[in-house]
Amino acid sequence: MTSDDAWLRAMCEAEAGLARAQARVGTVPAPAAEVITTVARDACLDTASIAARSRGAANPVVAVVEDLTARVAAIDPVAAEYVHRGSTSQDVLDTACCLVIAQVVTHVRRDLAAAISALEDLADRHRHTVMAGRTLTQHAVPTTFGLKAAGWLHLVRQADVRARTLVHSGLPVQIGGAAGTMAGYLEHARPHFDRLPADYTANLITAYADELGLAEPVVPWHVLRTPIVDTAAWCTATTGALGKIAVDVQSLCRTEIAELSESTADGKGVSSAMPQKQNPSLATLIRSAALQAPGLASTLAHCMLAEDERPAGTWHAEWQPLRECLRLAGGAAHTAVELVTGLRVHPERMRANLEITGWTIVAERLSAHLTPQLGKAEAMRTIATAARSGGTPPAALEGLCEPADYLGAADELVQRALDAR
Amino acid sequence: MTSDDAWLRAMCEAEAGLARAQARVGTVPAPAAEVITTVARDACLDTASIAARSRGAANPVVAVVEDLTARVAAIDPVAAEYVHRGSTSQDVLDTACCLVIAQVVTHVRRDLAAAISALEDLADRHRHTVMAGRTLTQHAVPTTFGLKAAGWLHLVRQADVRARTLVHSGLPVQIGGAAGTMAGYLEHARPHFDRLPADYTANLITAYADELGLAEPVVPWHVLRTPIVDTAAWCTATTGALGKIAVDVQSLCRTEIAELSESTADGKGVSSAMPQKQNPSLATLIRSAALQAPGLASTLAHCMLAEDERPAGTWHAEWQPLRECLRLAGGAAHTAVELVTGLRVHPERMRANLEITGWTIVAERLSAHLTPQLGKAEAMRTIATAARSGGTPPAALEGLCEPADYLGAADELVQRALDAR
Amino acid sequence: MTSDDAWLRAMCEAEAGLARAQARVGTVPAPAAEVITTVARDACLDTASIAARSRGAANPVVAVVEDLTARVAAIDPVAAEYVHRGSTSQDVLDTACCLVIAQVVTHVRRDLAAAISALEDLADRHRHTVMAGRTLTQHAVPTTFGLKAAGWLHLVRQADVRARTLVHSGLPVQIGGAAGTMAGYLEHARPHFDRLPADYTANLITAYADELGLAEPVVPWHVLRTPIVDTAAWCTATTGALGKIAVDVQSLCRTEIAELSESTADGKGVSSAMPQKQNPSLATLIRSAALQAPGLASTLAHCMLAEDERPAGTWHAEWQPLRECLRLAGGAAHTAVELVTGLRVHPERMRANLEITGWTIVAERLSAHLTPQLGKAEAMRTIATAARSGGTPPAALEGLCEPADYLGAADELVQRALDAR
Amino acid sequence: MTSDDAWLRAMCEAEAGLARAQARVGTVPAPAAEVITTVARDACLDTASIAARSRGAANPVVAVVEDLTARVAAIDPVAAEYVHRGSTSQDVLDTACCLVIAQVVTHVRRDLAAAISALEDLADRHRHTVMAGRTLTQHAVPTTFGLKAAGWLHLVRQADVRARTLVHSGLPVQIGGAAGTMAGYLEHARPHFDRLPADYTANLITAYADELGLAEPVVPWHVLRTPIVDTAAWCTATTGALGKIAVDVQSLCRTEIAELSESTADGKGVSSAMPQKQNPSLATLIRSAALQAPGLASTLAHCMLAEDERPAGTWHAEWQPLRECLRLAGGAAHTAVELVTGLRVHPERMRANLEITGWTIVAERLSAHLTPQLGKAEAMRTIATAARSGGTPPAALEGLCEPADYLGAADELVQRALDAR
Repeated sequence: MTSDDAWLRAMCEAEAGLARAQARVGTVPAPAAEVITTVARDACLDTASIAARSRGAANPVVAVVEDLTARVAAIDPVAAEYVHRGSTSQDVLDTACCLVIAQVVTHVRRDLAAAISALEDLADRHRHTVMAGRTLTQHAVPTTFGLKAAGWLHLVRQADVRARTLVHSGLPVQIGGAAGTMAGYLEHARPHFDRLPADYTANLITAYADELGLAEPVVPWHVLRTPIVDTAAWCTATTGALGKIAVDVQSLCRTEIAELSESTADGKGVSSAMPQKQNPSLATLIRSAALQAPGLASTLAHCMLAEDERPAGTWHAEWQPLRECLRLAGGAAHTAVELVTGLRVHPERMRANLEITGWTIVAERLSAHLTPQLGKAEAMRTIATAARSGGTPPAALEGLCEPADYLGAADELVQRALDAR
Repeated sequence: MTSDDAWLRAMCEAEAGLARAQARVGTVPAPAAEVITTVARDACLDTASIAARSRGAANPVVAVVEDLTARVAAIDPVAAEYVHRGSTSQDVLDTACCLVIAQVVTHVRRDLAAAISALEDLADRHRHTVMAGRTLTQHAVPTTFGLKAAGWLHLVRQADVRARTLVHSGLPVQIGGAAGTMAGYLEHARPHFDRLPADYTANLITAYADELGLAEPVVPWHVLRTPIVDTAAWCTATTGALGKIAVDVQSLCRTEIAELSESTADGKGVSSAMPQKQNPSLATLIRSAALQAPGLASTLAHCMLAEDERPAGTWHAEWQPLRECLRLAGGAAHTAVELVTGLRVHPERMRANLEITGWTIVAERLSAHLTPQLGKAEAMRTIATAARSGGTPPAALEGLCEPADYLGAADELVQRALDAR
Repeated sequence: MTSDDAWLRAMCEAEAGLARAQARVGTVPAPAAEVITTVARDACLDTASIAARSRGAANPVVAVVEDLTARVAAIDPVAAEYVHRGSTSQDVLDTACCLVIAQVVTHVRRDLAAAISALEDLADRHRHTVMAGRTLTQHAVPTTFGLKAAGWLHLVRQADVRARTLVHSGLPVQIGGAAGTMAGYLEHARPHFDRLPADYTANLITAYADELGLAEPVVPWHVLRTPIVDTAAWCTATTGALGKIAVDVQSLCRTEIAELSESTADGKGVSSAMPQKQNPSLATLIRSAALQAPGLASTLAHCMLAEDERPAGTWHAEWQPLRECLRLAGGAAHTAVELVTGLRVHPERMRANLEITGWTIVAERLSAHLTPQLGKAEAMRTIATAARSGGTPPAALEGLCEPADYLGAADELVQRALDAR
Repeated sequence: MTSDDAWLRAMCEAEAGLARAQARVGTVPAPAAEVITTVARDACLDTASIAARSRGAANPVVAVVEDLTARVAAIDPVAAEYVHRGSTSQDVLDTACCLVIAQVVTHVRRDLAAAISALEDLADRHRHTVMAGRTLTQHAVPTTFGLKAAGWLHLVRQADVRARTLVHSGLPVQIGGAAGTMAGYLEHARPHFDRLPADYTANLITAYADELGLAEPVVPWHVLRTPIVDTAAWCTATTGALGKIAVDVQSLCRTEIAELSESTADGKGVSSAMPQKQNPSLATLIRSAALQAPGLASTLAHCMLAEDERPAGTWHAEWQPLRECLRLAGGAAHTAVELVTGLRVHPERMRANLEITGWTIVAERLSAHLTPQLGKAEAMRTIATAARSGGTPPAALEGLCEPADYLGAADELVQRALDAR
């Protein structure tokens, strides 16, 4: 979906969409647009040859247009004259780029939906599964695994909401011509009319966006790179959301903690040397993706500083990081579905781990109960002294020490997350 | 607005807002909340002392609460017991953080509005100011300065739209207590009721958000850091948008190009060694900000990988980069207003520079005109040969060589940008 | 050491060093250089005023030179004429920058030395302290805490070696004048000679480097930013090295693992809500630093793309990230000394945790023993089956199951690390 | 050289080198090592199959070892037992990684040598080619193109020096076994001796390093990632050095400046729309590489925070960014040779551009001459007034206005750069 081939197909699709759009506004013959569309759909261009020829123009479009034109010409020489009519490399590549992004994001959304569904289930099923809440690596106060899953759910939903916005309105076609004035498009259009219709420009933009299912740009965005940085921001937010799940899973999979484990299906988690190992390898792959996206997004942000009408290098620096960002988001989402749907939860280990810190995990609660009599500071000191000495809690408070009785609003918060869909 | 002092004030404001919210839901006496609010407003805490005492807890809130409590106690010892009631460091600091962000973003929006207004004016005023469109550093086809300004306008508007969304819905209060269950808040609330009202949690969250003018969280977001990465994404998109303007201004200010210059008011642009220099120093400052934001945003994205209920380091790594991001966005916006309102446009230099490439700047147009007879490829070759040999255009096309006649839809595109408000 | 004040002092020191160097080569009167040196040493410039006046030139040097000149003039108007003679802003600021870097790095090396010494002690003392080696969060094979500490030691030593190289040869004075030709310096020098000595330039460079204890540049490096990216690379390598220690400490401090704990002196590790908590707050601070440095270093790397003889923005974008990088390295090193010297090691917990996985932690060993008979693959399968079923090891191998007997070359590797000093 | 295939070949080479090293220290039969070496050399593993099977273990080595073992077994079943003996995935992959790095860096050094040679020639040939020195985009004082080229030369030499250090001592073999104790290696070795020789470990490490031409590690570096961050730092310093050349070339290629142009051979620099265009496409590709490396290097720096004996994600996050960094450095170096050897310098345009600012480009010089009479400040003001009014210089100074007479030490500095080889 982000392979070299996929990019070439998207460029062909962009060229075909442009021809159809121009046909709709009357400046390319409809049959020519049809031929171009048919040829473009099955083009199967030669990746290696195009790569080799891309160095000259510092972009692949010149070579793509050559090859596509030749193939159209082989069928219909007249139609071949209408390939890339009035256009410029960046119009094609940026539009192709939005097509690729849209396809990836749409695909990722399916995975996010599956993950969301699994997380809703985990949150709901484990509302009452008590476990140690941990802060700065230490037992803090009790929580539930349901609330933890609800937090994951909320994060993934936020990633999905941003995906929806991005796909619905954040990915415009690019149609500006050589320097963003659309002059080439208009110049080729003029012979088709006595006088160019007043709404020709607007109609062409609308038709092009409509043909490809992308958004309409306000103005050409050759050097106004908001769509790219928005995509990058979404990728990092998405891998970050999934990465949060991954680091939690990893912590809770630790041999000594063992509250979660990954599915062991299909030779997952094996080691080349240690026969006993069962590694959290899905979480590892996801965390690895989340570690890579931010650096790539920072590169894409730098590329906003695109000088002139089209820049000498900042555009070119976008292609590989953008592709890699999309791959990381896609891979992380795919793996996350596998992780969360197969996740094994061990409530008995959660309970056993609570024993380690005993009553002190509700020290905050006991301190609250002493506060009316002793004042906040003295209450804290009293409980701290008892906790650190390894002693028992004040006798009067012994009835307050069950972790399951100190879950605050965990259950309601789970419900809020479930209801927020 | 992002100074150490401002952060301390925001923490005090968060504590006061919490007390008032608890008063509204009946678990803090109203007079106590009033005293806390009054003291918090004028607290003037000792930055250096708090900084020194912050190392122990690895965050400043413990020390802030100590000092604030002491000051409240000096006036009303009973009220002092209600400071930070049921709360935890991160609730206070994250809420303070959103207050600071909201304040900065609101302030930046005022500057963006001023920049937008100046850019609208530039775009409108220079709709017909013809200049060379430049791609990969070379003259490409003609454009107008109005269209260039329209592009800047569009970018800055997009930054502003994102700012509005961020302020209106992206910055929630934080209220989770020690491990995100709100247990401390509820524990302290129970003595005030026979039985805790079913909607206590929801009411407390709503009251807190309302008191501080921030959004309501679905669940506590101690380790769900979307608000922070959204803020960072906005900062980079904003500095990037302004940075695009800056690099354009710098290119066009070059001695040899000289189509733009910065305002020379107030000793701007002077050199320590060269008396004749007039540097584009405002653009320089803005570009410098745009170069710094992406790296900081990447750090903040990494901090999404926050393990457990509260993390040991990723939260702490947010503070300085976030502050710096906000400062860069604020500084860039402030400087951009100065830049675009004072920008001096030199249409006569634009015209003179067009002379350099003569008719060849409309080579695309001539090629379009030859295409019906010669076919696309041969037309391109014919014009390329003429252009590179330094010769004249084909005689029949001489009437097509005026750059001002080859502006495509520049004027309509300017209008689209102006109308998009 | 990196405060605004420290930077201003370093700029004054650079100016004074320049005057003395020019005195040594005969183009500034020795008494003038002395007066400048004396005044510069005690200058106490007004930070706020200089900051305000820095916007005009987009750098602080113009204002610093004004104020320093005024103070020299108050004592000796003739000497005042020799301040900043022939120089340019960037010569002063880059040289000041190297002075600041050198001072910080030298200071950090003292902390690294203390950390190295403590780590040598830990490695040596715990050569025979057996613990679980962990990979992908799971028990893998046994190791020793000594070997873990030896790895930390090696990393920190590598950071120190790079620090030494940086300070000894990586930080040159900057002396290029307005555009790197040194023309200003020579022009002011000519009146002092019948004919400028052939070695004047070389002598001036040498004298300047010598006066300030910095390296000699081959050529001016206004736009050749290797010293800055080398410094940034060192900062990230150093915080990364210390950050590795921090994440290990955090894992091993987890409540369930508890093999290490931080010193509890001085209110370290307290919580604002939970009286029982003892957080690994030193490791938290170090990890936080290590998370921040890479993004800053990436900004500094971008600033290598400095156009022309002096750039419009990339230089300006270095100051804050560089300062922050140095602070993070300094803070991390300082905190690391506290962490490693106060680290509490709990061998009995290490032993207890080994019990969790029992004989399976030597599964690799048992598999090796079965290999000659069964072949590698079958041996792996046999042991894997036994390990995953929770069964006992093959009877013949029971004598091989003591973790302390399967430490490989751990002891020799510790010695290699100790000997590598 | 960094393709999937190349990585698989390097893994096979690492396995073969290990077998030979073990043969040298007497624990693998020499014939077995020979067979393994022969098979490994021609292995041609199936990339797609290995990729598919890599998900389970979250790394490709398990699958590589399977396939390599099967192929060895097909020839010599006994030898097959000695493949990967005592080893672990990361030993193989890290060693392969250093082999790949070494090969790329060595290759890049050939390109750097060619670039250095071309730059030496440019610097020498253009010592007296006068041009405008430019700072903050404006004419500042005169310089020579030779000095500019000398600066480029110096930067590229620094990159090459760092490359040499990296290849000679910065890339160690990895040999630690499952958790860095080398236990597996020793366990498999014991049956070959009555008693394991005291120097077995050291000899094995030495033999392994020697077989592969890599450095000897002090201790296993599974989680001590200095070699990786050193490589990344070199990549960014190298692309940054070349990127500086690229941005200079781009500025000086601008239509209005036109002091440089790229070679026009081989369809370089063409446009899909504009027949007259001649783009600086080589500089564009180089700049694009330099924009991408810093973000990738920041990811690799984050990966230093590798917990435990082997980490769950940080190691995995290194592979793709490291590969991409190497590719960018390799591509930039390759393209830079083409750029600098084909660079066309236009001294007549340099001279013509100097006319634009006329005498004011030596304003600094004139100011210096007035300083003895007027004092520094008044001299600056006098010249500034004359320069900004567009007037003539003070009559007495007219003889000082030739730019070629105000080149300072440009020629000596060129020589310093040439001599620094």
